[in-house]
Amino acid sequence: MAMTEVDVVVVGAGFAGLAAARDLVAARRSVAVVEARDRVGGRVRNESIGPDKVVEVGGQWVGPTQDHVLALAKDLGVETFPTYDTGARVLHFGGKRGTYKGTIPRINPLVIADVGRAQARLESLAKKVPLDAPWTAARAEAWDAVTFETWLRRNTLTKAGRLLLALGVEAVFACEPGDVSLLHVLFYAHSAGSFQMAIDTGGGAQQDRFVGGSQLLCDKMAEALGPEVVALEAPVRRIDVTGDVTTVVSDNGTWRCRRVIVSVPPMLAGRIDYQPLLPPWRSQLTQRTPMGSVIKCNAIYDEPFWRAEGLSGQATGDGAGARVVFDNSPPDGSPGILLGFLEGDEARRLGRAGPDVRRQAVLDSFVRYFGKRAAHPVDFVELDWQAEPWSGGCYGTLFGPNVWTRYGHALREPVGPVHWAGTETASVWSGYMDGAVASGRRAAAEVLATLG
Amino acid sequence: MAMTEVDVVVVGAGFAGLAAARDLVAARRSVAVVEARDRVGGRVRNESIGPDKVVEVGGQWVGPTQDHVLALAKDLGVETFPTYDTGARVLHFGGKRGTYKGTIPRINPLVIADVGRAQARLESLAKKVPLDAPWTAARAEAWDAVTFETWLRRNTLTKAGRLLLALGVEAVFACEPGDVSLLHVLFYAHSAGSFQMAIDTGGGAQQDRFVGGSQLLCDKMAEALGPEVVALEAPVRRIDVTGDVTTVVSDNGTWRCRRVIVSVPPMLAGRIDYQPLLPPWRSQLTQRTPMGSVIKCNAIYDEPFWRAEGLSGQATGDGAGARVVFDNSPPDGSPGILLGFLEGDEARRLGRAGPDVRRQAVLDSFVRYFGKRAAHPVDFVELDWQAEPWSGGCYGTLFGPNVWTRYGHALREPVGPVHWAGTETASVWSGYMDGAVASGRRAAAEVLATLG
Repeated sequence: MAMTEVDVVVVGAGFAGLAAARDLVAARRSVAVVEARDRVGGRVRNESIGPDKVVEVGGQWVGPTQDHVLALAKDLGVETFPTYDTGARVLHFGGKRGTYKGTIPRINPLVIADVGRAQARLESLAKKVPLDAPWTAARAEAWDAVTFETWLRRNTLTKAGRLLLALGVEAVFACEPGDVSLLHVLFYAHSAGSFQMAIDTGGGAQQDRFVGGSQLLCDKMAEALGPEVVALEAPVRRIDVTGDVTTVVSDNGTWRCRRVIVSVPPMLAGRIDYQPLLPPWRSQLTQRTPMGSVIKCNAIYDEPFWRAEGLSGQATGDGAGARVVFDNSPPDGSPGILLGFLEGDEARRLGRAGPDVRRQAVLDSFVRYFGKRAAHPVDFVELDWQAEPWSGGCYGTLFGPNVWTRYGHALREPVGPVHWAGTETASVWSGYMDGAVASGRRAAAEVLATLG
Repeated sequence: MAMTEVDVVVVGAGFAGLAAARDLVAARRSVAVVEARDRVGGRVRNESIGPDKVVEVGGQWVGPTQDHVLALAKDLGVETFPTYDTGARVLHFGGKRGTYKGTIPRINPLVIADVGRAQARLESLAKKVPLDAPWTAARAEAWDAVTFETWLRRNTLTKAGRLLLALGVEAVFACEPGDVSLLHVLFYAHSAGSFQMAIDTGGGAQQDRFVGGSQLLCDKMAEALGPEVVALEAPVRRIDVTGDVTTVVSDNGTWRCRRVIVSVPPMLAGRIDYQPLLPPWRSQLTQRTPMGSVIKCNAIYDEPFWRAEGLSGQATGDGAGARVVFDNSPPDGSPGILLGFLEGDEARRLGRAGPDVRRQAVLDSFVRYFGKRAAHPVDFVELDWQAEPWSGGCYGTLFGPNVWTRYGHALREPVGPVHWAGTETASVWSGYMDGAVASGRRAAAEVLATLG
């Protein structure tokens, strides 16, 4: 295979890698972006559902304060439009269905008060976590030694309150409260501004969507870089540093370069063979950074029938199937699409159950929220991110107990000519597309500063 | 490279892989054992310190009820001898040094009572964890959602009691109490018989040693298999299943076979490229099974000077450096060797500090336990297992919260022709050499049952 020489190799063509490559090319550096998949986008993906219509089966939303990805969209000429949020929301909880407007459901006021008090405490603790170095928080050791489940049990008085907050964790992290440390939840909330920002539609992380789907941004970045820069179907297997020359070996080409930016999640970065070996703390970090568990399911209907009934399409529930649901129709409302998330334990259970059982479970939950019309979609487009070898899971990396405090220092620290990007390495909006873009730009700046 | 055809390929030449290969060969099956390192033994390793003298820098002890490894040693003609355990032990705790005989140190009786009560509770809970399926324990969900640190804080009354139990966790798991779930600690204790069995010298897991060092057993197994069976320096990169034929691709040879036994830790098994892909739950398991953090340090002296002073060489402390120390001299007591463990946070801290700082910290701790003569060894032989790419850490795999309950089912379940061995897959003495041998034999029996 041909050996190509460039200034910088970027491993991974998601938002982080492509944003890095963009800045490097703008600074007149030669770059190769080397991607394992047969497409760019990483954890975002458009699926075609007809002429000029797509449904997103990966990351999709954008919201206020996500300035990096919004500026990028503006540069690329990609418009946003508001997530459909008109009408009442559905809550199916404890076997009962109810609808409500605004953000506070009509349930037992004691439960509302319980959730409100616990969340207020959470928000206040989150502000105390330094975003650049969560392990330096005054109480970092104590917060990292317990699971979020432990904190939740100590800080709620009602079972229903605990369950509602657990639903919030499932929605934001695609895991159960016992999967992550309290410190991680606090960091993540602070990184998004607040836990409320991470959960909200209007004013929060789910406020807007991209016209044409989120992958369009990555497609446009890749197109501008050109096919001679972006190599697809080229999983990187080895990074070999010998003196001033670094060799990046993939299944579909080998590159020689001066610097490397690895923009894949830490877990996948850990599966590359480095010569010389990375420091033990970096290796042990990558053993401790599993990906979340989510299956994203879109049921497609002739029309968004719930809208005519005064419903926003947003629903939450504590039963089987999709526990978090959104109207995911295209900007013109045609076709109507309900997006249901299987997250944490439901993703694990229904991932093993197979596609037929899964589809039925999701549609059954849609019927509970929106009535019988939901039972008969014209199409059903899902993606089990647990089964994606080049992500390993979604939305992002879960930090269990004692990982941030023991290994956080190794997350972003370059090792010789190897720099680290990816949304996990971002301080602000870590885990989101915005954090990915920011991380790529930060890594590109690091690299540019080292190139003579 | 030549393509070799065998009935079974075994990946990894540690105790598990070699024990599997032994049984397969005894059943007249053709086998290849494919090992990444340039030696057999995996997490056990002999280091030569002169003619016919070795010091063990990996797993080394054996104790009562470890019937699998003891039977193997008998077969191979390897003798055992008792760990030196004559004289008083040293405890350096809260800035004070004391010596004691028996198992209970002379410290505040309230602390002794505190530790005793907490440990009794632990032992009683441990008995309730089914060894073949820890996730089926009646309280598995609750026990798995909290860290052992959380349990420790709830079940001890004194700080000193908590610290002593934390030292026990460091010694047994090479991690901190916040790194693992309560369920994992309970499983592990039950798997060893009891937590006390895991900690004890006489009557416990540290009772005896192998004459010639533990690696001798692996060397003898490999020798009997022959060099045409055991391939070294052959890291396995890909396992490709096509119909009835499975191809195992390494850096140093390719094999075609009917069945594969992967005997490396789950984390390393997860870094092999499988075609077709493994099920998502197996992949997510291997993302959640990091290895422990330990550096094993042996200081070598002309003679075991502590023995003449009535000391056993066993010491425990809560300060910097080695917190768990043993007399690790050869059977004839010459030279004298003190073995100090750096575990959990101390392994992480002193792993980063570099060899000079590390050696000094260990010797300083030895001086606190045994006086000034300990400051001047004639040699110092250490191994940082965190830096070993083909182990990733030691002693074994750490199961953090929600791993056993969500992914335990995938630990041992074969995937097509691929079977799983390794001490992590053992029910009894999981994490020990004994569990490794048992797991290899169990996997060999699985495979033999499938071969016509």
